[in-house]
Amino acid sequence: MQLNLHQTHHEIADFEGIFKYLTTTFQKGNLAGLHIFPELFLTGYPLQDLPLKKTFIDDYLAFLVDLSIWSERQLKSSSPLALLFGGLAYEFDSLGWPALIENVMYIMEPGKKLRVLYTKQLLPNYDLYEEKKYFTPGSAPKVFEFDGKSIGLLICEDIWFSHLHEIDPVEQLKEFKDCDLVVSINASPYHLGKVEMRVNRALEISQFLEAPFVYVNRVGAEDEIIFDGHTFVVDGNEVVKMAEGFKPQILSLECPEYKAPSKQNMRSYHSNNNSWMTIFSTRLSSDTMTLTPMGVAGCKEVLDAILLGIRDYCLKNGLNKFTIALSGGMDSALVLTILKLLQKSMPLELEAIFMPGFYSSSISFDLSYDLCRNLGVKLTTMPIKFIHSTIKTSYKDNFGAELNGLADENIQSRLRGALIYMRSNHMNSAVMNTSNKSEIAVGYSTIYGDSVGALSVLGDLWKSEVFELAHYINAHHGNLIPADIISRPPSAELRENQEDSQSLPPYDRLDPILEALLSSRFSAADLIKRGHNKEEVLKVYSLLTKSEYKRKQFCPIIKVKPKSFGFGHRIPISKKTL
Amino acid sequence: MQLNLHQTHHEIADFEGIFKYLTTTFQKGNLAGLHIFPELFLTGYPLQDLPLKKTFIDDYLAFLVDLSIWSERQLKSSSPLALLFGGLAYEFDSLGWPALIENVMYIMEPGKKLRVLYTKQLLPNYDLYEEKKYFTPGSAPKVFEFDGKSIGLLICEDIWFSHLHEIDPVEQLKEFKDCDLVVSINASPYHLGKVEMRVNRALEISQFLEAPFVYVNRVGAEDEIIFDGHTFVVDGNEVVKMAEGFKPQILSLECPEYKAPSKQNMRSYHSNNNSWMTIFSTRLSSDTMTLTPMGVAGCKEVLDAILLGIRDYCLKNGLNKFTIALSGGMDSALVLTILKLLQKSMPLELEAIFMPGFYSSSISFDLSYDLCRNLGVKLTTMPIKFIHSTIKTSYKDNFGAELNGLADENIQSRLRGALIYMRSNHMNSAVMNTSNKSEIAVGYSTIYGDSVGALSVLGDLWKSEVFELAHYINAHHGNLIPADIISRPPSAELRENQEDSQSLPPYDRLDPILEALLSSRFSAADLIKRGHNKEEVLKVYSLLTKSEYKRKQFCPIIKVKPKSFGFGHRIPISKKTL
Repeated sequence: MQLNLHQTHHEIADFEGIFKYLTTTFQKGNLAGLHIFPELFLTGYPLQDLPLKKTFIDDYLAFLVDLSIWSERQLKSSSPLALLFGGLAYEFDSLGWPALIENVMYIMEPGKKLRVLYTKQLLPNYDLYEEKKYFTPGSAPKVFEFDGKSIGLLICEDIWFSHLHEIDPVEQLKEFKDCDLVVSINASPYHLGKVEMRVNRALEISQFLEAPFVYVNRVGAEDEIIFDGHTFVVDGNEVVKMAEGFKPQILSLECPEYKAPSKQNMRSYHSNNNSWMTIFSTRLSSDTMTLTPMGVAGCKEVLDAILLGIRDYCLKNGLNKFTIALSGGMDSALVLTILKLLQKSMPLELEAIFMPGFYSSSISFDLSYDLCRNLGVKLTTMPIKFIHSTIKTSYKDNFGAELNGLADENIQSRLRGALIYMRSNHMNSAVMNTSNKSEIAVGYSTIYGDSVGALSVLGDLWKSEVFELAHYINAHHGNLIPADIISRPPSAELRENQEDSQSLPPYDRLDPILEALLSSRFSAADLIKRGHNKEEVLKVYSLLTKSEYKRKQFCPIIKVKPKSFGFGHRIPISKKTL
Repeated sequence: MQLNLHQTHHEIADFEGIFKYLTTTFQKGNLAGLHIFPELFLTGYPLQDLPLKKTFIDDYLAFLVDLSIWSERQLKSSSPLALLFGGLAYEFDSLGWPALIENVMYIMEPGKKLRVLYTKQLLPNYDLYEEKKYFTPGSAPKVFEFDGKSIGLLICEDIWFSHLHEIDPVEQLKEFKDCDLVVSINASPYHLGKVEMRVNRALEISQFLEAPFVYVNRVGAEDEIIFDGHTFVVDGNEVVKMAEGFKPQILSLECPEYKAPSKQNMRSYHSNNNSWMTIFSTRLSSDTMTLTPMGVAGCKEVLDAILLGIRDYCLKNGLNKFTIALSGGMDSALVLTILKLLQKSMPLELEAIFMPGFYSSSISFDLSYDLCRNLGVKLTTMPIKFIHSTIKTSYKDNFGAELNGLADENIQSRLRGALIYMRSNHMNSAVMNTSNKSEIAVGYSTIYGDSVGALSVLGDLWKSEVFELAHYINAHHGNLIPADIISRPPSAELRENQEDSQSLPPYDRLDPILEALLSSRFSAADLIKRGHNKEEVLKVYSLLTKSEYKRKQFCPIIKVKPKSFGFGHRIPISKKTL
């Protein structure tokens, strides 16, 4: 039996595009075998409130009818053919409002109407997941017969049983019926380390059920979430075939036979994984409590994820020009460099602006100039000094007071925010946010100033990881970023001789504290007990908890870690703390 | 039996404050009877991710121990005394991570340890509620015996059974045991019409269970959410006593006997209310599809809610000064007037700035001046004309192009945003956002410009309701707002002779379309079918769905309606639409 695993991506609610994809792919005939598509292939994911919205529901139901008619009348095949894909199933109450929405697997077969095969039983509901808000879980296992084989069906979270759930759909399947193949369709968001997690789990399940296991994943980015694909098949012993990450692909192969694992590939089935684990996981070494570097493979993966994140956001929102404000520092240099790398996979226009103020050093211009020369990007200088002094004079004239201190620092940052958006409005270009995760965590940025942007490129990377990624890019994509940008001490240059280290612990101490506190695993007191400097921990904890108001107004952050700021991070602004 | 209903408010996680409240209130002795406190009294609500955070858990568990010791050793009473309050109960797994968190009712009695009486069974999980993300539901009813009476216990959502839930805790209670009294503890957010909804439901339940019914609610604001109090008791026929709204109060009364309802007060128990109803409800008259006015009582209630919202946000975040940018238009005038009314209940400093640009009319200054004179607020003028022209010149010098069109409009708005924050930084004052719900819905504001602010005061009121509230305030609090501010045509004054009506349908047509589309009840096609102008509907729908990116970066909006923008409104930025 031929397996065709469609690692696809369509825009959310792009019913027309999906219909076209299906009719185009299958009009040719001779595509026999089992075709498997991702979870919620028919609608896209995550949908948030859309499944409750009348416009969405009406359009989706009409699309289902069209699909069903097409399947019944036009889908033809001389050999056994079946398409399995994820979608929504609705029931309505007497008022016509959705009384029940299920996350299901549909089957499409030549000459037959579309029908529901299986309903997802475990609904993820932690961090950025909130499926219990919208969906009703199923309660029955399903094994369907195709081309002489018994195929067990699972949807995404179904394979991640934990004590939070009442049933384990994998155990349920084992008790229900022997399978020749187990299929899981997924819309599984990327984070560093996720691919390995999935493969390990797939091997566990394959060996437990004594059947080959197929994992089909969605690919593409939805605002902050990256679906990485990496669709794969294991035969019990190892990965038989894996699709590339971060791009659509159809993975075709003959369905493998189950192989008993060799000794070193043997896994025992864990029926009590904590599915909240992302909430508690950290990337800290448990003994030294230092941050685990991403490594070369990690940097490559994260870069691919970020590139896909920017690309899809721009394609879906009609953006193909970028204006980037360079400060002469690391973060903006890295963002511009990443956009330059993105130019390889999509046509886009890039321009850079340098906006020197009173406290900008000449080296900042020189380094920005060197970077733009390396990248072949046009750099325009638009000084803010005169505008800034005009504002200071006007302030004194009208309020009778000198502008100084924080107010004087922040106005420079906000002026740059306004000017970059002015340019972006004029050029119809997009502004990408250049903040890193460390800054976002401690609120070390000016709201409406350097924190502006449509999408945050580096907002899930600690400052030390920003440096690691810069080194990686220089090593693997030519020395694009001038070495002095990487080596100079970070500074906002908003007052004389300012350096980040005057306000914050050095990043190699700050980042591990933040990683620990952002997970739900450690309290400030725990960190002090483990030997972190007390004063630093308390200061960082206070900065972290008090800057929530800034994060509430922050743009979406491309997510590359188990625990990120953004949609999955929910802390009240107003609260008592330590 | 004496009932003491504590309509309290404490900051989230203010364990020290809550301990002090209890020990102070009960140290005097002679406070016999039943004392009832709100849902999650011990922690505050909503907690979002806090119950998973190690620091929160450690502090809360220590607090529970202190409370228990105090109850056992120091709480004394010669007559029967019991305290019922809401809190969290935890179980931990072998790793020490929370395996189970329940939203429970504790009982405290003299000489005894604190103990859990009842676990909430229905967890609200729609709109801004997401209790299934954190809590595990209970499954058993509870009737506890106190002072010779059988008292049935319920927590908040337990009284709002719908087809989404599997059990009806009210029916369960009826089958379980006859009660002399039914108690419901709540943390029920305010929206217009909510008080009446609760009373109607309480009467239904009281008659169904043939027992008096006590409804104790939290009071106070948490970021965007307002808890309005309005604690009350019904005896089966009518409301016996109701606490004031929007302020803490202890409501004391002798426990009433159940009274059979008179004919006109008779209710039948509805066991199939749709608890998603807020998602589908609109404030439109079903025949004419026009927006139902708030009315005098509604305006009073909404104003009280907004005042409490600003007050608590400021108290909790250490803010007691405000800088408000006046445009000469309705929204900013109303915000400043509301802050003036807030001055009656808390000490705060107010100042206004008028920042005229090239296109500001002189009438805008005159009206701002008149308003400030009426309110006794200092007004400073800080023109942006010269700064604006400096920027234009600088843009031309550096980019070789004239600044015009949208870029030139937006830079004025962003410059004002930067300048108001400059003043706010200098004065350590807060900036309140002045956008209304209509603008927020169609994206008719400049991101980082007029959309800035810590908290949105009017963001849940359609423009037509802003006018209604302004008229109400003028009628009931002296003619504070100059009539010409209310009557002049709305304009952003960012280009020559600009008026809102050039870009948008008139507000009396725009607002009903938005109200319909924001609820999940109507599609754009439905509205056209019902006779709305097709072109207008499609334009408004497109503006609404395409401006999601602006709302993602918007500040918290004080919620006064069943369906609001903010935390409970979740729509992807990237998506296909109509």
